[in-house]
Formats: sequence, structure tokens, C-alpha cells
Amino acid sequence: MDLFITPQIEQLLRLALDEDIGAGDLTTLSTVSADSQGKGSFRAKRDGVVAGLVLLEKIFFIIDPAVEVRSFSRDGDRVERGTVVATAAGPVRALLIGERTALNFLQRLSGTATLTRRYVEAIKDLPCKLIDTRKTTPGLRTLEKYAVRMGGGMNHRIGLYDAGLVKDNHITAAGSLRQALERIRRGAPFMARIEVECSDMNQVQEALDAGADVIMLDNMGVKEMREAVRLINKRAWVEASGGITLENLREVAETGVDFISVGALTHSAPAVDFNMKIEISPKKEKGTRNKG
Amino acid sequence: MDLFITPQIEQLLRLALDEDIGAGDLTTLSTVSADSQGKGSFRAKRDGVVAGLVLLEKIFFIIDPAVEVRSFSRDGDRVERGTVVATAAGPVRALLIGERTALNFLQRLSGTATLTRRYVEAIKDLPCKLIDTRKTTPGLRTLEKYAVRMGGGMNHRIGLYDAGLVKDNHITAAGSLRQALERIRRGAPFMARIEVECSDMNQVQEALDAGADVIMLDNMGVKEMREAVRLINKRAWVEASGGITLENLREVAETGVDFISVGALTHSAPAVDFNMKIEISPKKEKGTRNKG
Amino acid sequence: MDLFITPQIEQLLRLALDEDIGAGDLTTLSTVSADSQGKGSFRAKRDGVVAGLVLLEKIFFIIDPAVEVRSFSRDGDRVERGTVVATAAGPVRALLIGERTALNFLQRLSGTATLTRRYVEAIKDLPCKLIDTRKTTPGLRTLEKYAVRMGGGMNHRIGLYDAGLVKDNHITAAGSLRQALERIRRGAPFMARIEVECSDMNQVQEALDAGADVIMLDNMGVKEMREAVRLINKRAWVEASGGITLENLREVAETGVDFISVGALTHSAPAVDFNMKIEISPKKEKGTRNKG
Amino acid sequence: MDLFITPQIEQLLRLALDEDIGAGDLTTLSTVSADSQGKGSFRAKRDGVVAGLVLLEKIFFIIDPAVEVRSFSRDGDRVERGTVVATAAGPVRALLIGERTALNFLQRLSGTATLTRRYVEAIKDLPCKLIDTRKTTPGLRTLEKYAVRMGGGMNHRIGLYDAGLVKDNHITAAGSLRQALERIRRGAPFMARIEVECSDMNQVQEALDAGADVIMLDNMGVKEMREAVRLINKRAWVEASGGITLENLREVAETGVDFISVGALTHSAPAVDFNMKIEISPKKEKGTRNKG
Amino acid sequence: MDLFITPQIEQLLRLALDEDIGAGDLTTLSTVSADSQGKGSFRAKRDGVVAGLVLLEKIFFIIDPAVEVRSFSRDGDRVERGTVVATAAGPVRALLIGERTALNFLQRLSGTATLTRRYVEAIKDLPCKLIDTRKTTPGLRTLEKYAVRMGGGMNHRIGLYDAGLVKDNHITAAGSLRQALERIRRGAPFMARIEVECSDMNQVQEALDAGADVIMLDNMGVKEMREAVRLINKRAWVEASGGITLENLREVAETGVDFISVGALTHSAPAVDFNMKIEISPKKEKGTRNKG
Amino acid sequence: MDLFITPQIEQLLRLALDEDIGAGDLTTLSTVSADSQGKGSFRAKRDGVVAGLVLLEKIFFIIDPAVEVRSFSRDGDRVERGTVVATAAGPVRALLIGERTALNFLQRLSGTATLTRRYVEAIKDLPCKLIDTRKTTPGLRTLEKYAVRMGGGMNHRIGLYDAGLVKDNHITAAGSLRQALERIRRGAPFMARIEVECSDMNQVQEALDAGADVIMLDNMGVKEMREAVRLINKRAWVEASGGITLENLREVAETGVDFISVGALTHSAPAVDFNMKIEISPKKEKGTRNKG
Repeated sequence: MDLFITPQIEQLLRLALDEDIGAGDLTTLSTVSADSQGKGSFRAKRDGVVAGLVLLEKIFFIIDPAVEVRSFSRDGDRVERGTVVATAAGPVRALLIGERTALNFLQRLSGTATLTRRYVEAIKDLPCKLIDTRKTTPGLRTLEKYAVRMGGGMNHRIGLYDAGLVKDNHITAAGSLRQALERIRRGAPFMARIEVECSDMNQVQEALDAGADVIMLDNMGVKEMREAVRLINKRAWVEASGGITLENLREVAETGVDFISVGALTHSAPAVDFNMKIEISPKKEKGTRNKG
Repeated sequence: MDLFITPQIEQLLRLALDEDIGAGDLTTLSTVSADSQGKGSFRAKRDGVVAGLVLLEKIFFIIDPAVEVRSFSRDGDRVERGTVVATAAGPVRALLIGERTALNFLQRLSGTATLTRRYVEAIKDLPCKLIDTRKTTPGLRTLEKYAVRMGGGMNHRIGLYDAGLVKDNHITAAGSLRQALERIRRGAPFMARIEVECSDMNQVQEALDAGADVIMLDNMGVKEMREAVRLINKRAWVEASGGITLENLREVAETGVDFISVGALTHSAPAVDFNMKIEISPKKEKGTRNKG
Repeated sequence: MDLFITPQIEQLLRLALDEDIGAGDLTTLSTVSADSQGKGSFRAKRDGVVAGLVLLEKIFFIIDPAVEVRSFSRDGDRVERGTVVATAAGPVRALLIGERTALNFLQRLSGTATLTRRYVEAIKDLPCKLIDTRKTTPGLRTLEKYAVRMGGGMNHRIGLYDAGLVKDNHITAAGSLRQALERIRRGAPFMARIEVECSDMNQVQEALDAGADVIMLDNMGVKEMREAVRLINKRAWVEASGGITLENLREVAETGVDFISVGALTHSAPAVDFNMKIEISPKKEKGTRNKG
Repeated sequence: MDLFITPQIEQLLRLALDEDIGAGDLTTLSTVSADSQGKGSFRAKRDGVVAGLVLLEKIFFIIDPAVEVRSFSRDGDRVERGTVVATAAGPVRALLIGERTALNFLQRLSGTATLTRRYVEAIKDLPCKLIDTRKTTPGLRTLEKYAVRMGGGMNHRIGLYDAGLVKDNHITAAGSLRQALERIRRGAPFMARIEVECSDMNQVQEALDAGADVIMLDNMGVKEMREAVRLINKRAWVEASGGITLENLREVAETGVDFISVGALTHSAPAVDFNMKIEISPKKEKGTRNKG
Repeated sequence: MDLFITPQIEQLLRLALDEDIGAGDLTTLSTVSADSQGKGSFRAKRDGVVAGLVLLEKIFFIIDPAVEVRSFSRDGDRVERGTVVATAAGPVRALLIGERTALNFLQRLSGTATLTRRYVEAIKDLPCKLIDTRKTTPGLRTLEKYAVRMGGGMNHRIGLYDAGLVKDNHITAAGSLRQALERIRRGAPFMARIEVECSDMNQVQEALDAGADVIMLDNMGVKEMREAVRLINKRAWVEASGGITLENLREVAETGVDFISVGALTHSAPAVDFNMKIEISPKKEKGTRNKG
Repeated sequence: MDLFITPQIEQLLRLALDEDIGAGDLTTLSTVSADSQGKGSFRAKRDGVVAGLVLLEKIFFIIDPAVEVRSFSRDGDRVERGTVVATAAGPVRALLIGERTALNFLQRLSGTATLTRRYVEAIKDLPCKLIDTRKTTPGLRTLEKYAVRMGGGMNHRIGLYDAGLVKDNHITAAGSLRQALERIRRGAPFMARIEVECSDMNQVQEALDAGADVIMLDNMGVKEMREAVRLINKRAWVEASGGITLENLREVAETGVDFISVGALTHSAPAVDFNMKIEISPKKEKGTRNKG
């Protein structure tokens, strides 16, 4: 699913530009004239899966609509060190002013896409799907979930609002799991699926009985997971969650769970470094100018 | 330097809460009554340096001013696995609704503080200071720079607006390094210091001659750095930058440079996991209620 | 499910106050002194189901935190003409300035809750559920869906983001219904249910075969609906949609469909009138004052 | 008077799009490719007076500047069922994503324009003018007042800020009607007219004596209104307000009042249904693409 | 008329604080501890009329709700050099961080109030009223118009939206003055008054004939103004505008015009200097602390 | 240094347009048709230094992207009465609606640039530089600092965040000047310079000893300043501040201080008047129209 640049994402882009530019780029606005033109090339500095190209146009548009962005890769593409993934051409000022922000988005989202790809590859021959969590960087939820998709993973619910997930506290508050589920079914949009977090086999059975759509096996051992999968027997989807790393991923996948969620995809993915090389065009004659 | 919760930070907090809560927490708003009270404990799930406690009060205040936050650690404290660093007491709804966002801030900022501390420790007996870069998570610049300070590091410039940093493109655009510096001195606030990025000894000499306040040794080898430090001879501050890891950090510091900047502190710090355990208070009788 | 006052709702409240107050209430700010205190009573001017009380506190808080709101009814309560549903006590200025905006929210949301209740009552002995649509007032989506719930109805998806709904254009674009569903399953969060809009029995069969979670019978006649229900035979949920009024509602419900959606609940519900009667407290001596 | 799309209106458009689109249209972004082009036709589904066309361009521009909107009717035109009032051509994604929001604005504003036209027609041969009230949908004040004009009505004051309206509470607070008027004249912009709400003949006399610019006859009977009109005798404008419906409108107008205000125009107008039919253009070859 | 702190004013306060505080007060956040308490006294540094006190509470509240503001003067009071007009007590950090912004509002608004008072005094024995214009500081319209009132002046229209003002271009566009007035009367809210700008006696006659509510004598000489006043003979209000200074003010007022507008009140009033003296309270023992 | 139109500046432009336009220009939207085209010429009404031209394009773009702005002067140019500095061509409506806001920016910023130029001229043969202060109009900080540069002055720090300035309260809070400086050096970005405010020779000596980068001579007499300059002897930059007017400026500059700050540049500069003359183009045939 492609990315839609929502108002929230645009707000984040503006926030990010703003925190970097502040009252203005002291260096660039003093040394580079308003009519200086050039082209910047975004280049990968190590191998990885690129994500975030889809934002470049908007980032530079906010600074100066005169900048033209061209992509040579697509989000989700595997790129090698040295690959030019995109160019931005236009006023050099705008290129220099937007450079760091653009790179910061690229490096982070590509980091998540790249890490996701490694996890996905590890279980690609199995029916089990890799999914993300809500352990995302504050403000970047939609973008990081997009990066997970670009890495080949799937998304868990986006937030608290698009699916139910019943944990201990909800059960305590509602009196019982059954009552919790009933209340959610009555109150939530009728299409919302509901998952129940379970930490032992009794809870799994209870969730099954109550009609959970999805059952989360929370921090269970591989053996217990296998047992749970058997017990559930396709009557609900099964998600394994907690403590899953590249090391034990495959083993977990082989238990027969439908989904494995990994928080590290979004909270601990190391950045994939990119840089931007700018060439300044030789001066041309020019006319009026009215832009800061 | 303590954190001031600027309008931008508050905007980010709201953005983060918003992306998680959306049109409302289907699970909690269906199962937990508005008058249910409780207390949540934020607990470290691994050893590290905590950062972000300073945000908790505001995060929960935005959701519901009735929540009371108490901290038991201070940002910058080293905490061990299992430590309760803070509690939030009030309406259970608010606790559940704010939980993930609060944790997401804590885990990320503590990640940066913890990684920074490791770097700082490695050179703590040397005069050289560890600094950050502008390779931060978009939207989290001020927070991540705060986390670096909490880890014991110092901050490079915050953005493009509070100091000058002259790179190749600026020199090309201005005609020469000397002209670039003159223009910045004339145009920027008079108190702004100016750094010049240098990749070889000639450039270092040129920067010195032009009166740079700070000289950045960009991706130089250790030997070349030592030479540069000798050449500069305290006439400017010296920053080592590029390709510095925990492995070579000490060696670089021993060259005599004044500052070492490390992008990984902010772009690739793994999160430090925290969780929040909520206890629901036994029901009391209650009167009116008018809050969603 | 209770209402959470999201940032968007708060933005709407502010927008609404702003469009009414503008540069200031010429009448009140000239005639009522800052320290004049009083109490306003919100009273129903006709029978209905009240909705929107949950907003009053926030509305007045935005104007002046000194105002105290008390509710005597709960959203969803049936109220009779003359019932005082809430009071707001505090500075008379704030009461007068917020009066119209508060009433405008109450009258509209109660309008939707009241109309919904009439529909719900008509089929309350049948298993079929009444649901709303996305034909809501721009900017009031979450509030109007809340009002529907307060009227006893259930919610269809909140927006484009929390469930899939496949129509002709999506099928054309994807090549076939089957491909459309596959793409959505791969791209959307894994918990998202998918509905397919069908206008004849062939399409119903195709949707069933493709594994739709919900099948919408779009503008079908009662007879055709019955046939569709039989064909679907519990393998998917069935929604009747289009052209349904209080007159034919029961007949449609008796076809065995699971859900009936009615746009009029939100786009054509007449307002339920409320007014606010203010009593000004007798003057007390007063000390400092520092509020406009 | 034409509509100016103020920042507040633009904020509402964004709010409306945002509440529908959220984190993205699951269905469309999964099934329709970014380069698929098409044309959507807005068609009236019943007879009425159209209003809101003036917003279409902006709504789609916010989603994607590549969409081109053409209108075939003008706001205020009477349209018949089946009339295509406008088209939007461009990326199919943008058309599908903006469709519901665009229709929701059209249906509501046309509802108000249509109802207004019915009232206006009923008294078109009389000098009396139909006006609206502040009983509008929160957030849509300016738009709904525009719709009233498009229906042939006139506007009462826009909000609390552009004219004075003295009611009981203001008089109590000021000590007397005379003092209330004096204070407003001294404090409000000198061009602001002032209206006084009167519920009996004594109050009318008092308002006249105090020099009110407009006198509101609040919930008076037809006979009393006639008497008031005689008493006032053109020394002030006269507005009839309260309890006026299509049934008694003409009778009220014949009393000689200058203006009749009707809240139902904005708070209880049933929507006029429109739909949008999209044709997808046959695929063309294409080049780069960089938009989500 | 008192000031209402509208969302726009609050937005300006936040903008003003933000532009001063940026990423944080380097000096204060490094040197003053979070629990240091104190009291700041706002003191006039020269004689004048104070305006803006009404904003202090909000300004400091935005920074830290713990600050308590007390006023000892009221906006509109004449104050002498040395007078303490208000105090703010609370965390020293908040006092130091808000100091400059608070003073900047006070100095500017008091500047306008003080200049206005001088003009008003010069004609206080005449029936003519001094009014402002729309030549205000961008973003401060409502505040500066408030300052004019605090100086004893009255307000012209607040903006383009609350009254009509017909100039040459409007007449040209409409075809004739008569048509311009007719169109505005039909399109604008019915209570809006309309002024016509006239630069000679013919235009005055034409405006009178067309039924203008207010006639502006634009840059006329005193003799011509007298003639115009005679011609108009109370059938419309008369405003003198253009080129009026303290020197010729009285002479103009004596022509019999009803209003004199002076742009300088808002565009060229010199600031009235205030300072803030802070006393730091002796340290007390303290418990928890959780604020940046 | 040129101006970058930051999000904050854009927010101010929008705020300024909004406060003038409100719900719409009653006069223009009633009398000027949407398709009427024209050209407005911005003309200086007295001699001065122009500043703010750089904003015109954006101001009109916000109203209507169809407006084209051309500048004939550059910010910082000395212009004579009658000079046309820029034109705006496009829909007459947009020109009339944006006119006052555009002029209000021009008149104020040109006021500051013009006053600055007078100060700068008075000391242009001396090495001393004229600088501004933080005594700016709330919300216009960045713009007014730009206007100072356009007048030939230099900027002091932009806000609290880009340099340190230690005053009495900070010293008291930190325990001593030395400790204050140490804490700031440790906590602030390493490139931030620090100034110390001194009111007598002892403080100057103490600041020097503590290693202040800049020493402010606060309200000292000319003789004392000379002494301070001698004492400091180039070991720190010296700023003279307080009570400096055009009359004593030169005398102060001759003391040898490096910088002189003058608050009046921004808080008390009289506006430079500009007007805008609009010519309406003769009507052309026109096709569709879809803009309010």
C-alpha cells in the first residue's frame, strides 16, 4: 500500500524543516545567491533497502516549489552503496537548506526497511508474516509503518483506533474477558477486529471461547506456542510477540503462528547512511528576483 | 542545560499522541469506565541511562490534567533493569491511552542517552568532548540533543541558524573561503561562531588564515588529525568528524582534537526498553462525571 | 464507546468558538463586567435524546477555565422538553460568549442521536443493527458517529483508513475483484476487514468467492436482499445500504441482513433545540482582576 | 457576496479531509496505481439549489494539485436531478480519496441553499427579507451563511463581533437598556449597528427611545408584531424572530417587519444528495513517478 | 470594551514566545535551577498610559502555569515613571524566559495608548471622536485597537469584514457608486454600515444621494471639510482622514466632522519603556520536581 | 544575509491576512467580479530605505496564486518619494484584499530600515557596528532583524537560544559569574558565545577574568566606557547598550566599543508610508470560473 502524505505527515515535514532551519541558514543565506542553480544527488553510502523517496518532492516543495525532484529508485528497492536514488534540481539555497532534513528522513526510513527485509528474508519460505508494533518513533508512526511495508513486512494495527487489543487491564476493568469483548463489539465500529493478549494456555482457551479474532501469544516459549497453535486450530489468527530476534525468528515462525511482531523494526533499526552531492550550475544571466 | 518544552516539542507530543489515539482507543473507551482510577509504574527493562522523564507530565496532562506524574529518577541517571523511574496516577483511561506514547519517548531518548554515555565513558579522562550532529530523527532534534546532554555529551549547533558551518558548496558559491567567511560575519548575528569543514591540510591552513572559529577535520585519518592539531595550535577549536565509532573513538580523542562528533548517537541508538504496569484502584463511590 | 476528545475535536471546538467570537463579543464585553458571576442552565426545548454534554466542559474551559460545568443527564439519555441537562457556572462573560457555540453542538448532536433512536426503536426486536455512513458533516465525523452510538446505533468504518470498502472503480483499477482483495490484504494492516459493494447477485457471488468479510447490498430491492442473504448464508456479514427510510427500515431488517446503514442519521437529522438561561449572581465585593 | 476561502475555511477543509483519510485510504492506495488517471462527475440526485461548488477546487488541490476542477453550474443555480454540476479530472487516487469529503460539503450546503430558496420564494413579492441566525453547524458558519445567500436569503450578523445584540442579561448587567447601548456605542467600532431583543411592546418602546438601530420582535404573535411595526414606524429596522416556519412565514412577512430570521435554514436543512461517478482513463505510457 | 483573548491573540503570544525562546534559553536553563522561586516587578520607565497588562497572565501561563500575575494598574491608567504596574511570582526560570516578550507587548501597546491619549486630550472638549485605522502592525490588529480604546480613542472597523468602505476601485468595478452600494447592501450582512471615501464635494454629494451611512473626507483641506459638513448636514456621519497630526487635529475637529482617523496611533507610536526587576527568593527545601 | 521565509513568518503572514480579511471583504466581494483583472503599484510616499519587498510574493500567493509580483527595487535600497518599488498583477479582488496587509508590512519594515540607516550613516567612518536588540514587535522578530540588516545594521542574538547573555539574576542563581559561565559552557551548544552584562568597572574586570566572549557596558557614561575599552583591551568584544540616541551615538562609537545596540530601531521606528494604486484592466471575454 502506497503512502498518502497526510496532513500529519506534512506537519512532521514542516516541524523537521523548522527545527533545522529556525530563523534561517546563517551560512547559506550569506554565501549563496538567490539565483544560483544546481543539482543535488542522493547517494546511498551503504547497501540497503531504500524508503522515503516518496517524501523528497514534498520536502523540497515546502522550501521552494521551484525544486524538481526525480527518483531513480522506488521505495522498497534494494540499493547498493553508491547508487544515486534521486536528484533534486533547482535553487542551490533550497537544496542546501533542505539537504539534512531530506537525508534524515531517508536514513531512518531506509534503516527500518532494511532491517525489516532481513527479518522477512529469514522466513520468506514460510506462510508466517512479519509485522510491526506500535513501538515507533513518536510522530513517525505512519512513515515507519510504510517503511516496514517497503521492507516486505506487514502492518499491525496503526494505532489504538483501528482495531481492538485486549490486555489484562481491560479485562480487569470490564470484569471478564467475555464482557470486555462484548463491550468492544457493541461500541467499536462493527468492522473492527479484536485481538486478545494471552500469556498462558488458559488465557488462550478463554480468548478462543470468547470469540477473539486474533490471539496474541505474549512472550511464550516456542514449545508453548506450538501447543497454542494446535489448540487454536485456525479458529483465530495467531500472533507471536515479545523477545523475538533474528536469531529465534525462524524457529518461532515454524511453530505455525500466522504473524510475528517485532518491535525492533521501528525502535532499534540502525540508520542507512545517504549523502547528497551538490553541483552548482555555471551562472546564467537573470532578471527579476523576489524570493528570500 | 535543562529542557524547555517549546511549542515545537509540545506540537510533537500532540502529533505523537494523535497518531496513536486517532479517533479514540476502541479497546479502552469500551471497557474502562471514565471514573476508574489507577496508577502506572514506568519500569526499565534493561540497564541504561534514562532520558525523557521530563516529558511525562506534559504527555499525560494533554490527555487528562487529572493525571499526576511523579519521578523517582532524574534524566541522566543510570538505571538498572527493574527500576521504577516514574509513576502516573489518575484515570485508568488516560493511563492506558498515553502509555505507548510515553514509553516510545522514553525508550528512544534513553537509547540515545545510554549510547552517548558509553562513548563519553570511553574518553572521560581526556580533555576532548563528545558532541552530536544534525543527523537526528526528524521532529525530535531538540529532544535528542537533550538526550545527548543527559548521556554526558555536548551539543554541536542545534540547527542551521545558530552557528555557521562552511562547506565546499558555500565556498564555491562565495568565490573563496575568505569571501564566504566575510559574508557570514557581516550577515549573521555578530555572536555566531563559524566552523569550516576541511578534508586536507591545505584547507586547514586556509581556514586558519581566514580566521575560522572552529575547524572540522572531515573523515581524516588519525595521523592527519594529529598533524592538523599541531598546525592549528589552539588558534581555533578542532572538531573530528566522520567514521568515528566506539572502536576508534579513544584513538581519535588522543590526537588532541577538542571535539569529536558522532552521528550514531542520534541516528542509530538502539532503544532502551521500558514498560508500564498499571494497577487499578478498587472502586469508590462517585458522583457526577463529564469527561470523555 | 465513550468519546475521547481528540486534538481534531478540540480543533473543531476552537474553530467553532473562533468563528462566533471573532475579535470579541461587542455586546458582552461592553456591558458585562469581568467580575460578574452567574449560572447558565441548558434546557431542552423539545423531547429527544441528548448528545454532546460531554463537550460542554471543554468548550467553556477554552473560553475561561473558571467556568464549572455540571451535567444532570448523560449523553444517550432521553430527555423531555424542559429538562435541565447541564449547568455552567462562572463569569457571566464566559457564559454569554460560549452560549451559542455550546448550544449549536448540543442541538446538532442531539438531533442525530434522536433520529437514530427512532430508527433503532423500529427494529429493536430484530437481530439486525442500524449503522451510520460517511455522509457526515465535514469536520464533525467523530462527533456525529458518537451521537449515532448515543442514539443506540452502531458505527460503520470511521473513515477510509480503518477498513476496506471495494467499489467498482477499485475493481476496475485492480483488474478484478479477486486481485483487489489480494492487494488490500497484502497492503492494509492485517486486522482490517474488507467489505465489497455489490449491486446484483452475480457480484454477491463473486464477493463471496473472493472471501469478502462484509458484503454490501447496494440499493437492492427487498426481495433481492432476501435472496442475497440466503446465498451468503453467514459466510460474510451483510449490509443493506441505499434508499432506506423509517418507512421501509423494518421490511429491510426482516430480510435477514446483519446491518442497515442510513445516511440520513448524520446528513439530514433536524436539530433538537436547546436554550441556556443565565442567572446573574448578586454582586460581591471583589479584589484584583486580571482577565479580559 | 461571493465566498472568500479564509484560513478558517481552509482549516475546516483540511480537518474534513483528515478525518476521512486518516492514515490513508486502505482500499484505494492498495488497488489504484499512482499514475491511473480519470474524471469524476458530480451529479445531483435530486432537484435543488446547488451551493459549495466554489470549494471543490480547493478540496482536490489539497489532496493533489494535479486535479483539475471544472464547474458547469454556479452556486445558487437551481439544478435538476441528474445535472452534472462539476467535474474533477486527474489522478484516480485523488478523486477517490476526495470524493466523500467533496460530496459532504456539497450535500450540506446545497441543503441549506435549497431550503432557503423555498422560504425566499414564499415571500418574494413582499419587501421583507429572509435572514439566517447564528444557529449554524459548528465550524461551518461562514459556509452556511454563504449557502443562505446562494439560496437568495440575506445574512444576519456573522458572529458576536460584527454587530451588537442586546438581550436581557446584558441589560441586567449594564443596569438599564440605555446604559447598555451607551456602553456598546462607546466601546464597539463606531460603525457597528446595535439590535435589541424585545418580547413585548414596553420593551419595544424602550428600545426605540434608547435609539436601537434594529429591534428584534422575539417570539411575538402576528398581531403584536403588526402593532410593533406601527409603533416603530421606520425609526428602526424590525426583525421577526422565533417560531417561524414555512407555514406562518408569509403571514409574518405581511406584518410589515423588515427581516425574518429562521434558524432552520442552517440547523435543520435536509441534505441534497449528490454523487460522483468516476471514469478511469485507458492507461497511457508513463515516466517517473514520485507521489504517494 | 474589554479585550477577549481570542485564539488569534493566543497564537500571536505563542509565536512571540517561540521566536524569543526557540530551542531554549541557553543562559537561564544552564544557570537557574528548576525550583528557584522569585518575583518580578513590571515598572514603567517613563510616564504614559499603560496597555497590555491584560496579557501578562496568559503570557506567563503559557510558559508555566505556576506563575501568578497580579496587576496594580489597569489598562488605560495613566502611570508615572517608576510605577510598578504588575508583578509575576513563581519559578525564576519562567520569569526570565517570559520577561522580554511580556515587556515587548507592554511597551508597544502602551506606546499606542499613550499617543492616543495625547490626541484625545487635544479635542476632549469637542464632540468629535478620535478613531484609528487599519494601518496596524501585522498580527497585532486586535491588540492595537484595544490599546487605542485604552488611550481613550474609538475604533474604526476592525477589518474588511465588519463594515463596508467603498473606494474608487470598487466604484469602477461596480459601474457606479449607486450600484456598488446596492450590491453591498444585498450581499453583506444587513447590519453592516457602509462608508464612502470622497475626495471632493461632487463625490460627497453623490455619496449622500446614494445613501452612504458614513462619508469619509479623504485628504481634504479644512475649508473644504467645513463645506462638506454643511452639505451633509447630519444625513450621514462624517470622517476626516489623511494627513492629520497633533498640530492640525483641533482645527480639523472644529470643522464639525464626527470622527477623525489617525494612522500614526498604530503605525508610528514610539514605545513606552518598561522593565522587570526580579528578586530571587531565598532557597527553601524542596521535594519532587518534574518540569524542564 | 537574505531572508528565509520560515514557517513562523508564514504563520505571521497568515495571521495578518486573517485579522484583516476575517469572514471576507464585504466591499470587494460584493462589487468586484471574480474575473476582473488589474495591476497594483506599490509607491513610496516618502523618502526612505525600503524593506519587506521580499514578502510581497508570498502575501499575495496566500490569497491567490494567480497574482504575479514584480519588484523594481531591492530591500535595502534607498527610495525616493514617488518611486514604484513593486507591482502586483492579477485578480483585482486579490489585490484589494491583500493591499492593506502588504502595505502594513512594507511601512513597518521600511520604517526600521530607514531609521537604522540614519544611525549607521552617523558612524559609517568608524569601526564600530550598530546592532539591534530583542526589543522587537512581538511576532516580527525575524522580520525586524532583517529590516535592521537592510538598513545596514548588524544583528545581536536572535533570541534566548542562539547565544548566552548573563545578567545579575543568572549570577545570583548560579552563585557567581564564574560558575554561571562554566554551567553555560557545559550546557549550551559548544559554539555559542557568551556575553556578560556589566554596569561598572569591577564587573567588567570580573567578566574578563571569567573569560566572557562579549562584555556589555550597560548604561555607562562615555568616560566610563572609554575606560572599560582600555581595560578590556581586545580580550573580548565590547557592546555599549542603554540610552543611546542619534545625538550621542557618535560620541559613544568614538569610545572604541565594538558594537552599539539601539532598541529604538525596532521598538520606536516611525512607519514609512507606502500606498498601492490599482488599475483595473479593461474586461476580456472569459470562460469558466471556480474561485470565490
